[in-house]
Amino acid sequence: MSRGYLIPIGGAEEKFRAPAILQRFAAVCGGSEARLVIIPTASRLQETGPRYVEIFQELGVAHAISLPFEERKDCAREDWLEELQKATGVFITGGNQLRLSTTIGGTAVADILRHRNNHEGLTVGGTSAGASILSEHMIAYGEEGGTPRCDMVSLAPGFGLTHEFIVDQHFQQRDRLGRLLTALAFNPRPVGIGLDEDTAAFISPDDEIEVVGSGAITIIDPSHMEYSSMDSARRHEAVSVLGIRLHILTEGCTFHIPSRVASHASATTP
Amino acid sequence: MSRGYLIPIGGAEEKFRAPAILQRFAAVCGGSEARLVIIPTASRLQETGPRYVEIFQELGVAHAISLPFEERKDCAREDWLEELQKATGVFITGGNQLRLSTTIGGTAVADILRHRNNHEGLTVGGTSAGASILSEHMIAYGEEGGTPRCDMVSLAPGFGLTHEFIVDQHFQQRDRLGRLLTALAFNPRPVGIGLDEDTAAFISPDDEIEVVGSGAITIIDPSHMEYSSMDSARRHEAVSVLGIRLHILTEGCTFHIPSRVASHASATTP
Repeated sequence: MSRGYLIPIGGAEEKFRAPAILQRFAAVCGGSEARLVIIPTASRLQETGPRYVEIFQELGVAHAISLPFEERKDCAREDWLEELQKATGVFITGGNQLRLSTTIGGTAVADILRHRNNHEGLTVGGTSAGASILSEHMIAYGEEGGTPRCDMVSLAPGFGLTHEFIVDQHFQQRDRLGRLLTALAFNPRPVGIGLDEDTAAFISPDDEIEVVGSGAITIIDPSHMEYSSMDSARRHEAVSVLGIRLHILTEGCTFHIPSRVASHASATTP
Repeated sequence: MSRGYLIPIGGAEEKFRAPAILQRFAAVCGGSEARLVIIPTASRLQETGPRYVEIFQELGVAHAISLPFEERKDCAREDWLEELQKATGVFITGGNQLRLSTTIGGTAVADILRHRNNHEGLTVGGTSAGASILSEHMIAYGEEGGTPRCDMVSLAPGFGLTHEFIVDQHFQQRDRLGRLLTALAFNPRPVGIGLDEDTAAFISPDDEIEVVGSGAITIIDPSHMEYSSMDSARRHEAVSVLGIRLHILTEGCTFHIPSRVASHASATTP
């Protein structure tokens, strides 16, 4: 079987009035037939997991369960690993992405997520910290501002479900263009995906991104980058980056990662 | 065909008197039958490439050539890509690893190295910066000292030939235990390989490391890590990391990455 959907969400997604993103998330996982696992590890609030369970149940998902991995040894619990093996979708909540990488990184839980997403069609998504953690290279923390500067961003290994992109969230709300550009200026292999709040990238098994939600997704495509000064920039100095391609996508727009082609909503709607 | 050897070297390898590492490197690539490509991009010195060509020729390699990729557009030169397609081994010189990632990252050169190493048995190795760049997660720069501290290290995407380890070089000479521990404290999935100068890890296609050279290799195995405080540490604060396994290996010792088993020289010599 092929890869499952990857669904990074920019944080602060609408949960009650018209929860378009969570509704679509549930649908991709199988709707009323879905078996959803919530991973609330990034959050320090006890209620985060149960709250998402309730929300997904209200959206018609019959089976939703929260697995609160709090310490590394929790990641070896057989009963919880079994739940992950049976799941059709996994939703990772917001909080601190380093809680996720330090608690779950290198454990059986991370192995199952990567293996089942890459080979068994398991949908994996998450919001804010839960979006960052999905890819191989994750933004751990950084500084605000529009201009890339040396030392503006710290990268760390995420769960490694894909190499194709690096995600940043709360993108417009926290002025993060600079730090995402900085991350790509190190090595322009991945595409940058900047997600506004209440905005999600539904990334299909053939790596086509579709935008859902009320904000925008900023795609930073460095594949034709001509030059980056990251190798010679001094600490806190601005970094020059030439030849970046930029797309701002709103709901219904798509971006096909392998071909680097962006399409607008009216072009793709029949 | 299976993966080729990966050969990270800790820098300052002996080049003339008794060049054990470079001699063994040439042998792994096919000895007198080898077709070696030198990539001197990390270095700012014009003579670096030609110097290694000479050294390898003196070691009996008939065909050695330096491809000085200086700008990103050089990475599309058909004649040079053809040399890479025909090579049996690639040697990446020292200098600045961010020169490598910013100049070659995301280009056809990086694709060929990854593809041919992973699927066609191409040997790829390098010294210092050329060692760092091999893996998916690369130490771009950092600070000296033995204790891990938040913000002590900056990671960036390397050429991505493997996910299994993170390399650090000039390890004893530049007091880098702290920064390698910091890198692993983010996410203990990879193994840490700290390479002293004039010391190399010959990593076979089945991921067994063999030590060659006059110094030591420090293996940091975080697979049983019980706890990391990286998610809650403040800037420049010391980071706690519990349950790390450490091996100091010298010439002839081995470490099998998949099983995490270390063996000493007398145990492996028949």
